[in-house]
Amino acid sequence: MNPLYATMPTTIFEIMSGLARETGAINLGQGFPDSNGPSDVVAAAARALTEGSNQYPPMAGLPVLRQAVADHYRRHQGMDLDWEREVTVTSGATEALAAAILALVSPGDEVVLIQPMYDAYLPLVLRAGGVPRFIRLEPPHWRLTAEALADAFTDKTRLVILNNPVNPIGTIWPAEDLALLSEWIVRHDAVAIADEVWEHVIFDGAAHQPIMALPGMRDRTVKIGSGGKIFSLTGWKVGWMCAAPALTRAIARAHQFLTFTTPPNLQTAIAYGLGKDDAYFTAMRADFARARNRLTAGLQTGGWHVLPSAATYFLSVDLPASGIHMDDETFCQMLVREGGVAAIPVSAFYADNPVGSVIRLCFAKKDETLDAGIARMTAAR
Amino acid sequence: MNPLYATMPTTIFEIMSGLARETGAINLGQGFPDSNGPSDVVAAAARALTEGSNQYPPMAGLPVLRQAVADHYRRHQGMDLDWEREVTVTSGATEALAAAILALVSPGDEVVLIQPMYDAYLPLVLRAGGVPRFIRLEPPHWRLTAEALADAFTDKTRLVILNNPVNPIGTIWPAEDLALLSEWIVRHDAVAIADEVWEHVIFDGAAHQPIMALPGMRDRTVKIGSGGKIFSLTGWKVGWMCAAPALTRAIARAHQFLTFTTPPNLQTAIAYGLGKDDAYFTAMRADFARARNRLTAGLQTGGWHVLPSAATYFLSVDLPASGIHMDDETFCQMLVREGGVAAIPVSAFYADNPVGSVIRLCFAKKDETLDAGIARMTAAR
Ligand SMILES: CSCCC(=O)C(=O)O
Ligand SMILES: CSCCC(=O)C(=O)O
Repeated sequence: MNPLYATMPTTIFEIMSGLARETGAINLGQGFPDSNGPSDVVAAAARALTEGSNQYPPMAGLPVLRQAVADHYRRHQGMDLDWEREVTVTSGATEALAAAILALVSPGDEVVLIQPMYDAYLPLVLRAGGVPRFIRLEPPHWRLTAEALADAFTDKTRLVILNNPVNPIGTIWPAEDLALLSEWIVRHDAVAIADEVWEHVIFDGAAHQPIMALPGMRDRTVKIGSGGKIFSLTGWKVGWMCAAPALTRAIARAHQFLTFTTPPNLQTAIAYGLGKDDAYFTAMRADFARARNRLTAGLQTGGWHVLPSAATYFLSVDLPASGIHMDDETFCQMLVREGGVAAIPVSAFYADNPVGSVIRLCFAKKDETLDAGIARMTAAR
Repeated sequence: MNPLYATMPTTIFEIMSGLARETGAINLGQGFPDSNGPSDVVAAAARALTEGSNQYPPMAGLPVLRQAVADHYRRHQGMDLDWEREVTVTSGATEALAAAILALVSPGDEVVLIQPMYDAYLPLVLRAGGVPRFIRLEPPHWRLTAEALADAFTDKTRLVILNNPVNPIGTIWPAEDLALLSEWIVRHDAVAIADEVWEHVIFDGAAHQPIMALPGMRDRTVKIGSGGKIFSLTGWKVGWMCAAPALTRAIARAHQFLTFTTPPNLQTAIAYGLGKDDAYFTAMRADFARARNRLTAGLQTGGWHVLPSAATYFLSVDLPASGIHMDDETFCQMLVREGGVAAIPVSAFYADNPVGSVIRLCFAKKDETLDAGIARMTAAR
C-alpha cells in the first residue's frame, strides 16, 4: 500500500456532509446548491440520453463541447483557443487537476502551492513525486508578497498551482498579485495550473482575469474549468482543461488512463448551456450575490464577523472577531454536532501552520435553508 | 513534463476509432456496441436526471448502487460483500484501475503484468513508480506456465494485475491457471487487481469464477466491475471496485482526488439495471453469442482463421493461418485505410516481444454492420 494513502484522511467535504446527513444538521459545508440546476440544461441531458449515443465518445471529448468551451471563453474572456488542439474534456475539474499534475510533475520537481489551497492539490503533487513549496496567505487581506515568492521559487520550480477565484475564502486575485505571480512563473520558465472553476461565480460587477492572458503565460498555462460549477450541477462531473498543444498532448495521455472519457449526454447538455446568452450568466451571478448578502446580513445581525466574499459559493467567518476563542476544527465539530450547522474549517486548506481562526460557509442555498442556518448560527454563539 | 507522457502515444482504441471516423471504415476496433443500451435503463437515467439530485453524491457512491453491486454479486457469483465497507463506485473501470494502482504501488514495488494486457495497466504502474514484471501468453492456447510465474515473481512482488475474461483474446482463465496464479499471489503475500469487467459477457454456459473467491484471496483482491460493459452503455463510465475494508479505505483516498464522485443519475440507473432478473442476463449473453457466431462463420467462409472466443465483445483472427504474412500493425493500418474495416492489432497489448500475428475484431454490432464487415474482410484477402 502506498504510505501516502494509508494515512490520508477522507476529504473534509465528505466528512462534514456525512456528519450533516447523520445528525440532520443544515449543510453549509460542502459546496453545492440545494436546488437542482437549470431545468433546460437538465432537459437537454435527458434528451441526449434517449436520442443520442450512450457509447464511448472521443477521448478528448465531444467536438460540440470542445467548440462550445472555446467559443465561450472567446465571448466571455476574449481568449483565442483552438478547440481541436487546446481543449480536452475531463470527468470534472478534479480529474483535470489529476491528469495535469500526473503529466507535468516528475519525481523531485518542485511545485509552488498557495495556501489556503483546495485539498486535492497536495496529495496529487505528492503522489506524482513532486516536492511542495508553500506560500501562505493570511486574513483579513490574503495578499501575496515578494518575500513569500522569493522563499517559494527555486531553480527546481517546475509548476505553480493557483486557484482564482479562491476557494475557500471567496476572494478574487488582485490584478497586481496575479501580475507579480505570473512574472515569477515566466522568469522561472515554470508552468501554471490555473484552477478557475469559480470564474463565473463572481459578484459586484467584477470581471474574471484568466492568468493565461497575462504576458508570457499563453503557452505555459493549463486553464481548468467546470461545467458543474458554472451551472450548479455539481454531480455531473464535466470539466475541461485548456492549454497550448504541447501541454494538451501530454495531459491527454494521462487523461486517457484516468477516466478515458466522460458521459456523452452530459457533455452535450453542458455544450448547450455554455451557449446561453449573457442575461443568463448575469442573473445567475445576481442570484448568488443575493444569497451571499442574505447570509452575510443574517450572520452579522447574529453577532458574527463575516469576511468579504467577492466570488465562489462561500463566505468566511472570523472566529476570534466573533468572540469565539476556539480553533476552527474544534469549533466546526461542535457546530455540526451541537449547533446543527455543518461548516468547513479553513485550516483544512493548509498543510502546515494553518490559519485556524476562520470557517467557511456555503451560501448557494435556498432562502429557507440560509434562514434556518442563520437562526442556528445565532443560537450557537 | 513527465517523460512517460511526453513520449506516450494515444491509445490504439482511440486511434483506430479516429481512423474509422475519418475514412468511413466499419468500426470493429474499439469495444462498443452500435446499439444504444437497454431502453429501460436509459429511461431510469433520464428520470433520475429530472426527479433526482444533480449535486455531489457521496464520494464512495450512492448507497443504492453500492448495495445493488453487493446484492448482484451475491446472487450471480455467490460472494459476500459488505457494501458499506467494501464497495466503492468509480467513474468507470479505468478510474478504478487508476485509483487502485496509485494507492497500492510505491516506487520500487514490483507488479506482475500478464500479456496480452489491457493498455491502461502499464502506464499507470509506471506512473506510480512500479517496476513491471511481465508474463507472456501465446496463441493459440494462451496458457500460464509455472516457469513464467517463477520468472515473474520475486521478493519484491507487491501486486498482480489480471484480466478475466481476457481482452483482447476473448478467453476465460482456465480454472487450473487461475488456481496456480492465486497460489503464487498468496505465497508472495501480494495483492491482486482483478479486472473482471467482462464477467457477464461470457458464452456457451460458462460461469464466471472471481479470483477473490479462491483460497486465501478474499482479503487480498480488488475486484473491478463495469456498469458500462454489463449493460452495453460504454459511454456512461460507471464502474466500481470491491475489496476488503483496509484496501477499500486506501483506494478510496486515491479515488477522492481523481474524480471524487460519479454522476448520480447514471448511478441510480445502473443500480436499477443490476437488479434485473436472470432472464435479462441470459438473453444478453445469447445475443452476443449469436453475433460472435455470425462473425465467426462469415469470416471462416471468407477464408479467415478465427481463434475461439469464449467471452468479451471480441474474437481474434490468426493472420499467418489466414495466409496473411504481414505483422498485425501493418495489416491493421492497411485494413482500415484500404479494406474499410477498423480492427485492433493484438501487439498493442504487449510491452515487449509482442505476439504480432493476431488481430482483434469486435462483434458487439448489429447484423448489418457485421455482414458489411464480413464482406469487406472477405474482399480484403
Ligand atoms: C469535491 S467536494 C468539494 C466541493 C467543493 O468545491 C468545496 O466544497 O469546496
Ligand atoms: C476505453 S476504450 C477501449 C474499450 C475497450 O475496452 C476495448 O476496446 O478494448
